[in-house]
Amino acid sequence: MSATTISVAAPADFHVHLRQGSFSELVTSHVRLGGFSLAYVMPPIVNTEEALLYKAQLQAIDPTIEYLMTLYLSPDLTPDEIRKAKQSGIVGVKSYPRGVTTNSEGGIESYEVYYPIFEAMEEQDMVLNLHGEVPSDPTSNTCVLNAEATFLPHLVKLHKRFPKLRIVLEHATTRAAVECVKSLGSTVACTITAHHLDLVVDDWAGQSWNFCKPVAKFPDDRQALREVIKEGHPRFFFGSDSAPHPPDRKSVSSPKQACAAGVYTSPILLPLVATLLESFGALDKLEHFVSGFGRAFYGRPAADERVTLRKTLHKFVEDSWALGDATVVPFWAGKQIGWEIVSE
Amino acid sequence: MSATTISVAAPADFHVHLRQGSFSELVTSHVRLGGFSLAYVMPPIVNTEEALLYKAQLQAIDPTIEYLMTLYLSPDLTPDEIRKAKQSGIVGVKSYPRGVTTNSEGGIESYEVYYPIFEAMEEQDMVLNLHGEVPSDPTSNTCVLNAEATFLPHLVKLHKRFPKLRIVLEHATTRAAVECVKSLGSTVACTITAHHLDLVVDDWAGQSWNFCKPVAKFPDDRQALREVIKEGHPRFFFGSDSAPHPPDRKSVSSPKQACAAGVYTSPILLPLVATLLESFGALDKLEHFVSGFGRAFYGRPAADERVTLRKTLHKFVEDSWALGDATVVPFWAGKQIGWEIVSE
Repeated sequence: MSATTISVAAPADFHVHLRQGSFSELVTSHVRLGGFSLAYVMPPIVNTEEALLYKAQLQAIDPTIEYLMTLYLSPDLTPDEIRKAKQSGIVGVKSYPRGVTTNSEGGIESYEVYYPIFEAMEEQDMVLNLHGEVPSDPTSNTCVLNAEATFLPHLVKLHKRFPKLRIVLEHATTRAAVECVKSLGSTVACTITAHHLDLVVDDWAGQSWNFCKPVAKFPDDRQALREVIKEGHPRFFFGSDSAPHPPDRKSVSSPKQACAAGVYTSPILLPLVATLLESFGALDKLEHFVSGFGRAFYGRPAADERVTLRKTLHKFVEDSWALGDATVVPFWAGKQIGWEIVSE
Repeated sequence: MSATTISVAAPADFHVHLRQGSFSELVTSHVRLGGFSLAYVMPPIVNTEEALLYKAQLQAIDPTIEYLMTLYLSPDLTPDEIRKAKQSGIVGVKSYPRGVTTNSEGGIESYEVYYPIFEAMEEQDMVLNLHGEVPSDPTSNTCVLNAEATFLPHLVKLHKRFPKLRIVLEHATTRAAVECVKSLGSTVACTITAHHLDLVVDDWAGQSWNFCKPVAKFPDDRQALREVIKEGHPRFFFGSDSAPHPPDRKSVSSPKQACAAGVYTSPILLPLVATLLESFGALDKLEHFVSGFGRAFYGRPAADERVTLRKTLHKFVEDSWALGDATVVPFWAGKQIGWEIVSE
């Protein structure tokens, strides 16, 4: 007989986009709504001052969430700024592929220009968060499908050069990435999103709302993500990469319009992850995946708070959420979801 | 010095969807507008009577086009119907994957139930047109990306069993398909669309208007299509797979909406193909590709008619075409195109 309720210790989302301005007002409160009490906030932020200001803005919207702040890796960052950031409680530095592209050499990305930053981060015990994709380049047969696998040698090289630097390969989507991270040392971990446990390429083919970066890959890649969670590997933990966009940036009304990459899962997050893990027989790993493993890697204490979920046959995901003139449409809009959070 | 005009013998589109009803009124006239005088019409048609009626409807819309008609491969088709079709001038039979799926065995498609039909077709010298994709199946790691490559063994098996049956692998998108068709005998040919000479997976990721089946693949796959045209291989010729849909079937306004697969190229076809072939140095193969090779494979006489194209720096593709309440948006809408048809 399967359980009809399940309780997990303070879920932590180790990769989330909370935006700015009125959109932030709408989506920041959805962290708690989705059952989470820690948000590792991905940046549009380049220095400590901005990060602290941003953190204060988020706290003003919802003071009950623990916000872990990050900086954006760019040529403007200095070892001094890293030390300053650490002293101010900033936890990590995020590398986006486009930040790396500017230092590319003959189409091959190079991180060497950032080695002084990484040295300072290693010394300060800050975490490097990698968006692990190389930019598309038809001349080298690189496209959204192999962008992650092609990136992996860079991860291996960085880890070898900075073995004590804690590195997180964010939102892994391929069997190759799972195997690579497994093969590396204890300082290298990997986040997995909810939507990549659900989607394959067929699901975003012609459906822009399911389009995100990295794109969902082959069924066998999804299977590898599911297996590593089922296995209970402690270096694979949850980060939603929940990335809200206004509906007119996700819709595609003409061939001239570019759709924004991103899937929005925050307000349904814990019920969604529970539903997905249950679907592949890993519900017993829920607490480790959404709370324990990530907190352990980041050295965060286990919180006292717990969240209880209840199995339901009557719950359908909301079509949208709105606040003022901001609207956002969630993943699985209108779809039945198998678990709901029990109100305290 | 490159030429500023080019003239080609009566272009033939060996794979086009002309729809029915008011939508057909709009799009059928675009065959001529795009510079073509022969349309190999893909069916929603299951018997000779319907095919002849459909042909008469198309002729009523534009009597200047030569329409070659096809039937849809289904369990309702009989050897007698094949003989009747041949006598009525019907040229081919089209197999869609979904027609095959109903006869699948353990996820592996089987054509054996159709062998009596293929024997009759071989005897009558009719052409088998294959949509060469197996249905997606996560349990066997099959998805839109490997659906074509996974189909190829079926093509090889069919050709071995029916060596005299003329078979066309339609709208090839992969290097694997190009190499497979090359390796087979003279009775096996392959059509290539315009849009697959232009698109890779990045172009339809988040852009539903570029979504079609088969989906555009890796840059190296596109390169293989370009190379075989540049090589002037006589068993690789043009079929647009131009597939018009109303704008609300190509737009994606919500996560609940499914987008129709298909790219619409008919009204800009010859200028588009010329622009693309020129981009990879194969403009000298234009006539073979759009007229000679296909007519030769299908045993159609070379027409006297010629079409002249002129290089232009001032031509942009129309945003849409409309007739009555039917509207259609073309591929490359609003984009600059390098060639235009010289009016007679």
